[in-house]
Amino acid sequence: MSTVLRLASRPSGPARIDNFTVCDEPLPPLAEGEARIRTFLLSVDPTLRIWMSDQPQYMPPVELGAVMRCAGLGVVEESRSEGLPVGAVVTGLVNWREQFIARAGEVTVLPVIPGVAWREWLGALGMTGGLTAFFGLEHLKLKAGETVVVTGAAGSVGSLVGQLARLAGCRVIGVAGGPAKCERVVSRYGFDGCVDYKNEDVGAALDRLCPNGIDAVFENVGGPVLNQLLLRMNNFGRVSICGLISQYDLDRAPGPWAFPMILMRRITIQGFIILDSIPRFGEALGQLIPLVTSGSIKADYHEISGALPGVVDALNLMLSGGNEGKTLYRLGPDPV
Amino acid sequence: MSTVLRLASRPSGPARIDNFTVCDEPLPPLAEGEARIRTFLLSVDPTLRIWMSDQPQYMPPVELGAVMRCAGLGVVEESRSEGLPVGAVVTGLVNWREQFIARAGEVTVLPVIPGVAWREWLGALGMTGGLTAFFGLEHLKLKAGETVVVTGAAGSVGSLVGQLARLAGCRVIGVAGGPAKCERVVSRYGFDGCVDYKNEDVGAALDRLCPNGIDAVFENVGGPVLNQLLLRMNNFGRVSICGLISQYDLDRAPGPWAFPMILMRRITIQGFIILDSIPRFGEALGQLIPLVTSGSIKADYHEISGALPGVVDALNLMLSGGNEGKTLYRLGPDPV
Repeated sequence: MSTVLRLASRPSGPARIDNFTVCDEPLPPLAEGEARIRTFLLSVDPTLRIWMSDQPQYMPPVELGAVMRCAGLGVVEESRSEGLPVGAVVTGLVNWREQFIARAGEVTVLPVIPGVAWREWLGALGMTGGLTAFFGLEHLKLKAGETVVVTGAAGSVGSLVGQLARLAGCRVIGVAGGPAKCERVVSRYGFDGCVDYKNEDVGAALDRLCPNGIDAVFENVGGPVLNQLLLRMNNFGRVSICGLISQYDLDRAPGPWAFPMILMRRITIQGFIILDSIPRFGEALGQLIPLVTSGSIKADYHEISGALPGVVDALNLMLSGGNEGKTLYRLGPDPV
Repeated sequence: MSTVLRLASRPSGPARIDNFTVCDEPLPPLAEGEARIRTFLLSVDPTLRIWMSDQPQYMPPVELGAVMRCAGLGVVEESRSEGLPVGAVVTGLVNWREQFIARAGEVTVLPVIPGVAWREWLGALGMTGGLTAFFGLEHLKLKAGETVVVTGAAGSVGSLVGQLARLAGCRVIGVAGGPAKCERVVSRYGFDGCVDYKNEDVGAALDRLCPNGIDAVFENVGGPVLNQLLLRMNNFGRVSICGLISQYDLDRAPGPWAFPMILMRRITIQGFIILDSIPRFGEALGQLIPLVTSGSIKADYHEISGALPGVVDALNLMLSGGNEGKTLYRLGPDPV
């Protein structure tokens, strides 16, 4: 038997547990080529909230009645597949399921790398982390000495964006919510400064921290702060839209009233989805793994443990900014 | 003596004649290297309304007390400059002045080309016309067979954008206000279809006219229509922001609520200002002039004649869409 969460209704505002049905479902015996995988870590990502909605989006929404889609890590416990040996740790769309059956190719077997904990594959080396930071930065075409502002700077993607941009020789300013996050952004991730959008006049803080204007923005959040950024952009500035986390719970968020700045300052705004870069993940990991093992970039994790249904609360904690680092929901211990 | 209009106060909403002072000002005698130019045609452009405001913009706003900035055509009537011989027709920032004094290099002497009327240099071969269409289309990186939507399709820039995109092998759909303009867009400019945003359900019309979605948008207008366009864009779509004419009279127009589509469809939005392409005007004119003289592209002109202060009403007519073609304000006849 495996507990699974199926989407029963589309949330209006924050997701609630009663938007899901909790089902204990039998697992059929393995056929040739199949393996049984136990999920031990779920990646609690903003995109989950997009997938629960039926707004236009980059993948099909999760259908009502279907198991909720989710990335994570699992371990092979029983196998009739050569490609998925017992004990192997895998990543992919494990979904909101305690256990599931997969074939080789449906999940990716992770390599054992000394100094790399399993959870790094959902953070510093994962899609909601280093990989997205790496490819999003490519779009920004940063030059050394430029000023880049990163929103969601204390988050899983933002913290890595800032560290990589610093390594590229840029002046990096973060935007985060609350003094604790801002302190972490500067002291642990090495940003040149951080705006506390919850407690500061954002425009005045940006004026102080970006005396030469803003050349590039890595946008994870959207909402009112984006207006203040657009107003301060230099000519030919670039904005990479990685996420708009402030808007996912809203049915129709207002657009940025500073939109005409795109014209006035000849700004380029580009949205990107990490899935489009899958063919180049190897190239990115080749650069990221040495930075992780050498300690040149740091990722933090906010782990919450519990039974499967608790993942809904973990999602809401993260969407409201209550997390300190990449949010993970742990269903079981790391395999030894 | 020369009548000039000086900006006395910044308009709130549409400009009014009492935002200006009408001054009769003496012209000093010519110094060596100077010429006296009589303005005979003013280009009535949306950007005039931007320049009157103090919103952030791509050039400095016109200062209070200064002569209103404006492009146009003039003829040299008296000269002590070798580069500006008497009888030469010039273009440049003639401003809202009946006459003015300039040196060679401050205005551009136009060549006499058989089959090219002087006013074409403010339209099909001008900045608010063919040149902007040419460089804005470059940003869109159109491929033959793609669907491109042009807003302000009956206007000076939009009508030429559509004709050039048709020559590039694209399906071209316009958006314009009212049946007369839509009729002209299709029958005279050869667009594949046109949405009347004033009298049609824009979304339904776009669904009908763009059955394969929208690959590219040439945006001259902004406002609510942009949401309907973003909702129908294909993955990796491109939007060139040339103008946002619907917003210039507003103090703070709402941004597009469909902004998250930039992320979902990996859209690139790029603002551009024609002044950045001045070094490449020769290259563009080399392609545009034969298209004009051969009749392969057509431009229409809406001329209003009168004394200088009437240009304010001409501007408002154009900004409210009452024009049929490129709006020009004529202060005097073409030189013979």
